[in-house]
Amino acid sequence: MSNSLVISIDAMGGDHGPAVAAPGVALAIERLGARAPRFLLHGDAAKIEAELSKLGAARALCEVRHTDKVVASNEKPAHAVRRGKGSSLWNAVESVRQGEARAVVSSGNTGALMAISKLQLRMLSGLDRPAIVATWPTLKGVSAVLDVGANVSSDAAQLVEFAIMGAAFHRAVHGAKKPTVGLLNVGSEEQKGHEEVREAHRLLREVGLDLDYRGFVEGDDIAKGTVDVVVTDGFTGNIALKTAEGTARFVRQALKDAFTSSLQAKLGALIAAPALRKMRDRLDTSLVNGGPLLGLGGIVVKSHGGTDARGFANAIKVALDLANSDYDKQIVRQMKQLAAVLPDAAEPAASEIAR
Amino acid sequence: MSNSLVISIDAMGGDHGPAVAAPGVALAIERLGARAPRFLLHGDAAKIEAELSKLGAARALCEVRHTDKVVASNEKPAHAVRRGKGSSLWNAVESVRQGEARAVVSSGNTGALMAISKLQLRMLSGLDRPAIVATWPTLKGVSAVLDVGANVSSDAAQLVEFAIMGAAFHRAVHGAKKPTVGLLNVGSEEQKGHEEVREAHRLLREVGLDLDYRGFVEGDDIAKGTVDVVVTDGFTGNIALKTAEGTARFVRQALKDAFTSSLQAKLGALIAAPALRKMRDRLDTSLVNGGPLLGLGGIVVKSHGGTDARGFANAIKVALDLANSDYDKQIVRQMKQLAAVLPDAAEPAASEIAR
Repeated sequence: MSNSLVISIDAMGGDHGPAVAAPGVALAIERLGARAPRFLLHGDAAKIEAELSKLGAARALCEVRHTDKVVASNEKPAHAVRRGKGSSLWNAVESVRQGEARAVVSSGNTGALMAISKLQLRMLSGLDRPAIVATWPTLKGVSAVLDVGANVSSDAAQLVEFAIMGAAFHRAVHGAKKPTVGLLNVGSEEQKGHEEVREAHRLLREVGLDLDYRGFVEGDDIAKGTVDVVVTDGFTGNIALKTAEGTARFVRQALKDAFTSSLQAKLGALIAAPALRKMRDRLDTSLVNGGPLLGLGGIVVKSHGGTDARGFANAIKVALDLANSDYDKQIVRQMKQLAAVLPDAAEPAASEIAR
Repeated sequence: MSNSLVISIDAMGGDHGPAVAAPGVALAIERLGARAPRFLLHGDAAKIEAELSKLGAARALCEVRHTDKVVASNEKPAHAVRRGKGSSLWNAVESVRQGEARAVVSSGNTGALMAISKLQLRMLSGLDRPAIVATWPTLKGVSAVLDVGANVSSDAAQLVEFAIMGAAFHRAVHGAKKPTVGLLNVGSEEQKGHEEVREAHRLLREVGLDLDYRGFVEGDDIAKGTVDVVVTDGFTGNIALKTAEGTARFVRQALKDAFTSSLQAKLGALIAAPALRKMRDRLDTSLVNGGPLLGLGGIVVKSHGGTDARGFANAIKVALDLANSDYDKQIVRQMKQLAAVLPDAAEPAASEIAR
């Protein structure tokens, strides 16, 4: 008997649409074996079927829901909300809202995914804005970093919300019982940073939340893996993430240049090739692909627009881990704890959704 | 006849004190040949002399000024200002104030260096706060990124000041006639980001400054070398810089692990070693060491606390390039241009010095 859990897929999102989504689904099914869920794939039926026909046994777990309409990668979120009804993205989210699916995975336009999800699924009780989590490869494994772009500024209460959401996510996906949490700042001393981070620091120390708060961390602590969850505002988090991606690309390019700079270097690279491939896998962001939009009243996972089938399969795994956990109940319970000590925590915070 | 230009050195700063400062000075002299300046080295005379005695001809261009007193690396800036008088850092800056030296180089406590420099040298006309510039290795060469930590928040007018200072610095040190400038943001579209960056964007487009403003850039544009000068607030800039350092360290560690993972990989690494050494040099931050504190009424260059002699020599080269340029006049001239269109630009901005 097949698994009753269903995951909804926006098969038209990202740079490659069904050409990555379909083999991604197949790879997830292969990896999960008997634990594989079923899938609803939304988008151009002919294109999706053509991709699915190349696959083997996975086909039986997939159902295709046709729509011609897609949300463009550069479409403004507000426009997508007004005009996006009936698109593959919209319908994929709608499957969650209607209870047909437990989670949605999309490689589509982040802003549109967030706006349409927020409209259809609403927020979890007590929360005002979603946050995007990045899973970051570190010397010790992976850490969760949030927010990486859902909000352009955050007040102290919102930073505390991110800590709660990040810890619940990390627990659900990586199994840490009491995740360690750090607040990103320009130094580790108490008096460092602007008012918002200092106030959030005070709150995190004083409110007895179900997480292991370790204080301020700095930019280089992220890749060190100093803490399981790194909390920051969406502006800083987005810039840190993209700066790290740019740096990793720069170092890889320098390595490539070095290995092609002489015949001797090429020979060395050839001999070391198996080890270098393993290293590439370790650094490969597709291995840690799958950034959930946390705080929504349903599970929404954003897959990187340029990812491959492996990356898409990982995003599906993240959605499944969240679906099999009680992370949402944990968030709601701790938000109540926070609200008890901070009467105005539930009021709309002074932030804007990334437009 | 020796050069009449004098550079003042805080020989006790950083992790290694005179053991790096003295050979750094010697290396700078060797590289510069006939263009080498003279040096005043401030600190423990016995220790400095011991290091200088190991050096050759360079010795003749160095004068030692003894003091027992040092500013500790963890000393609070406010404390250093009150109690630091007579320390090697203080005296090194004082040499510039008294006109004995044209520039000062220190690997000491950044906050203390900034506070003592600001007290003694004051700010350039029209400027309120110094900014720290990082020289960032990119796919195209190097870019200047500022502010990387002198301020924890910046309003729009300050971001424009950073653009002016960064462009003048890049012109002085890297010779670009009209440096390209980008404003760091979470997207490249007009409506992205918070109010400060959007207002700074508007000012940079409308005020006809002597720089080539290219609009918003994202985190991954830094290492791509999309623009010569990347402008951001000190909080974001500091976190971006440290995140990049952490990422580079992580990738290097992954490479090292790969190359020691098997006998075959070790053999490959051995054969490719000359090329890998060249790569390491390209990535080596000591090659681009030397972050000036811009906006002060004198040339102050911060060398990384953990740098080696090569890095210290580079910081000296940056100080010398600034000393041989009219970057300060350029800044003052453009600040007047800015003040003309923005009557309140010279008022104290809502920022705090990093404590």
